[in-house]
Amino acid sequence: MRLSRFYLPLLKETPSDAEIVSHRLMLRAGLIRQMSAGIYSWLPLGHKVLRKIEQIVREEQNRAGAIELLMPTLQSAELWRESGRYDAYGKEMLRITDRHEREMLYGPTNEEMITDIFRKSVKSYRQLPLNLYHIQWKFRDEVRPRFGVMRGREFLMKDAYSFDLDPVAARRAYFRMFVAYLRTFARMGLKSIPMRAETGPIGGELSHEFIVLAETGESQVFCHRDLVELPAPGEDVDNDSDLETQMAHRLSLYAATEDKHDEAAFNALPEGKRMSARGIEVGHIFNFGQKYSKPMNAKVTGPDGTDVYVEMGSYGIGVSRLLGAIIEASHDDAGIIWPEPVAPFDLAILNLKHDDAKTQGACETLYAGLTKSGIDVLYDDTAERPGTKFAAADLIGLPWQLIIGPRGLEKNEIEVKNRRTGAREMMSPEAALNRFAHKV
Amino acid sequence: MRLSRFYLPLLKETPSDAEIVSHRLMLRAGLIRQMSAGIYSWLPLGHKVLRKIEQIVREEQNRAGAIELLMPTLQSAELWRESGRYDAYGKEMLRITDRHEREMLYGPTNEEMITDIFRKSVKSYRQLPLNLYHIQWKFRDEVRPRFGVMRGREFLMKDAYSFDLDPVAARRAYFRMFVAYLRTFARMGLKSIPMRAETGPIGGELSHEFIVLAETGESQVFCHRDLVELPAPGEDVDNDSDLETQMAHRLSLYAATEDKHDEAAFNALPEGKRMSARGIEVGHIFNFGQKYSKPMNAKVTGPDGTDVYVEMGSYGIGVSRLLGAIIEASHDDAGIIWPEPVAPFDLAILNLKHDDAKTQGACETLYAGLTKSGIDVLYDDTAERPGTKFAAADLIGLPWQLIIGPRGLEKNEIEVKNRRTGAREMMSPEAALNRFAHKV
Repeated sequence: MRLSRFYLPLLKETPSDAEIVSHRLMLRAGLIRQMSAGIYSWLPLGHKVLRKIEQIVREEQNRAGAIELLMPTLQSAELWRESGRYDAYGKEMLRITDRHEREMLYGPTNEEMITDIFRKSVKSYRQLPLNLYHIQWKFRDEVRPRFGVMRGREFLMKDAYSFDLDPVAARRAYFRMFVAYLRTFARMGLKSIPMRAETGPIGGELSHEFIVLAETGESQVFCHRDLVELPAPGEDVDNDSDLETQMAHRLSLYAATEDKHDEAAFNALPEGKRMSARGIEVGHIFNFGQKYSKPMNAKVTGPDGTDVYVEMGSYGIGVSRLLGAIIEASHDDAGIIWPEPVAPFDLAILNLKHDDAKTQGACETLYAGLTKSGIDVLYDDTAERPGTKFAAADLIGLPWQLIIGPRGLEKNEIEVKNRRTGAREMMSPEAALNRFAHKV
Repeated sequence: MRLSRFYLPLLKETPSDAEIVSHRLMLRAGLIRQMSAGIYSWLPLGHKVLRKIEQIVREEQNRAGAIELLMPTLQSAELWRESGRYDAYGKEMLRITDRHEREMLYGPTNEEMITDIFRKSVKSYRQLPLNLYHIQWKFRDEVRPRFGVMRGREFLMKDAYSFDLDPVAARRAYFRMFVAYLRTFARMGLKSIPMRAETGPIGGELSHEFIVLAETGESQVFCHRDLVELPAPGEDVDNDSDLETQMAHRLSLYAATEDKHDEAAFNALPEGKRMSARGIEVGHIFNFGQKYSKPMNAKVTGPDGTDVYVEMGSYGIGVSRLLGAIIEASHDDAGIIWPEPVAPFDLAILNLKHDDAKTQGACETLYAGLTKSGIDVLYDDTAERPGTKFAAADLIGLPWQLIIGPRGLEKNEIEVKNRRTGAREMMSPEAALNRFAHKV
């Protein structure tokens, strides 16, 4: 993509109402623009990152055997009356009346709707286990939206719903998602720690929040220090095996959010292992048994011919919030530092003298060669001064910058800069092409 | 994907309230389920088709130089007051009040919002031309939703918005989309005909609807018969060239929707060339000059230093509606016949004797081989009877069926059936693997 044909409105000044660094950087780097309180447009650069995050989430859900569908954003109030949550949900639920005076709502979550889909189509235990998910926009009318996409009102969420015949199978479904979540966040360059958590309006007993540690995190968390360094499970994980047992060591280490914190148990840890930090919630999983299947009459016929209410769980990932979490965890004074798997482009080419024929020729050749080999390049072909281009490239944070100017080209050299380490290396354009063309 | 692990709830009975064939087939084949009037869930099979259609739309928008972003579903009423459309839009607009009593709406279209994004960030003609698009859920509170996804209330739309310095450039932008639309629909196996159309609440003078001919179409259309056979432009089209001139022959042939129909001009055509038919609108493009830029004060500084209101256009494709249009155009008594580019899976493997070790082995080998070579296979590994499997495969309409049973395998043969032509061919499993593995 040529920058001259792209749409990348950077802000020169730091927005004064943005309280945390990810919000400031998302505005400055032209990732988002606020439309109303807590409601954002995703500008082209931000949209590209959002889609990459979404795709990683999707791949790991599919790997864990979950099946993708898509439910609508608007739901009927009737469904929520069946579960008793229509009145219980309070003002966070955006209630809507249509032209025929029917009561509707903009879905904040989908337990009722998926249970309705399930009960109308699944009648036998033979169709279980089943885990259905979607990646869809949700709305929660936060009383005070803030921190940009971290606590917005309209947000993108992946929510999965599992259906099983009995509590043992439901627990297996729960730990398939547990493992998938560890892999999902690790693939984005995040260290996430599952912590015992409260279940709130979703319900149930067994629940974990997946927390990314960051100084600006919204909540206080407590955990055993070893959890930070535990590697994520590999992609060869066998979903039909007993994953809870394989997670036994991880589950044995203390980890809890403030709501579930047990001071005595925490203090019993060796002093060097006690870790108290701020965290950002990026995922939350729930096992809530028959909380929805019973009032909504979602039953299957079991192997012995009797009908049983299905055992359910739900599993959420804050897809749009993850952009904020990744930036909180990966930035410096100059701007964002994208982990390669979620970077909006793979690399930038900076043309330092756009009106010099030789420089332009070298840039064009490299741009064409890299694009042809599948590298997604942002080519800064604008008439801006070099200093402006350097600052913009650091701000938007692509992993690599290929800096091309007439002085280097006299020696057949360009500069390759690693955004994360700041390391710079001189090499020929051909060597640069070879280095990156082999990365795909 | 193994059917035993997929979620494909087929309906045995034809739903009585579905008036047109695409609606009936989408329900029976487990593509959608109605949640409220005009609001659907996209079940896994339907969701896969939706994503394939979306991706073709995206690729052709990108090829035409449009840049993708994503605006939110909820908009502030204030913006719509600026253009004067808040009161003008009527009851089709779903109006919402949030917890702080702010007036909002679920966007039925995005001219105001994109103009707001534009005016806050683009100040110079040097940043033009610009065409920004998104693919997002919209809501129109139809008084009588019907025909399934063809006239739903919550629907997926691609809408693009062009910004240019003067009317000549705006017209070029218009015809870039005109050509992109012809290519887009052709890639889905549809013959679309652009027709002069009314502009309604969007505004402007120059406008075309893209119409797919189908007996069950909502509107009456009139055109020169030659238009049906004109090929779509190739992918090598040069977006910087004068596309209007290249479209001159097509534009010279009579084509109009009922609203714009000119009986005298139509009757002047040679009798054999007069075509009057039913049509489905799948796209609609508009050039409306300064209709929004003037009241919303969207200006750029021109080359001579004076500020001018930008010239705009907007360009819509009904992404979710396209599923219905494709099925209307491509089905038979047994079910759907998907064009290959939008088929939810590339092919089906039907295991005719799931408890026979040899049959199962042959199926598994073929399934593994095809999957490894990048073919997306739906493998019917269930315990259903052959007749049920044949009917299901015809109903869901994958382009190819590989039918594997013990009798054929005695001669090392399987049956390969083409869903569209019904042609059947016997070949060895190895030959089938070779035939399809080379298609990717």
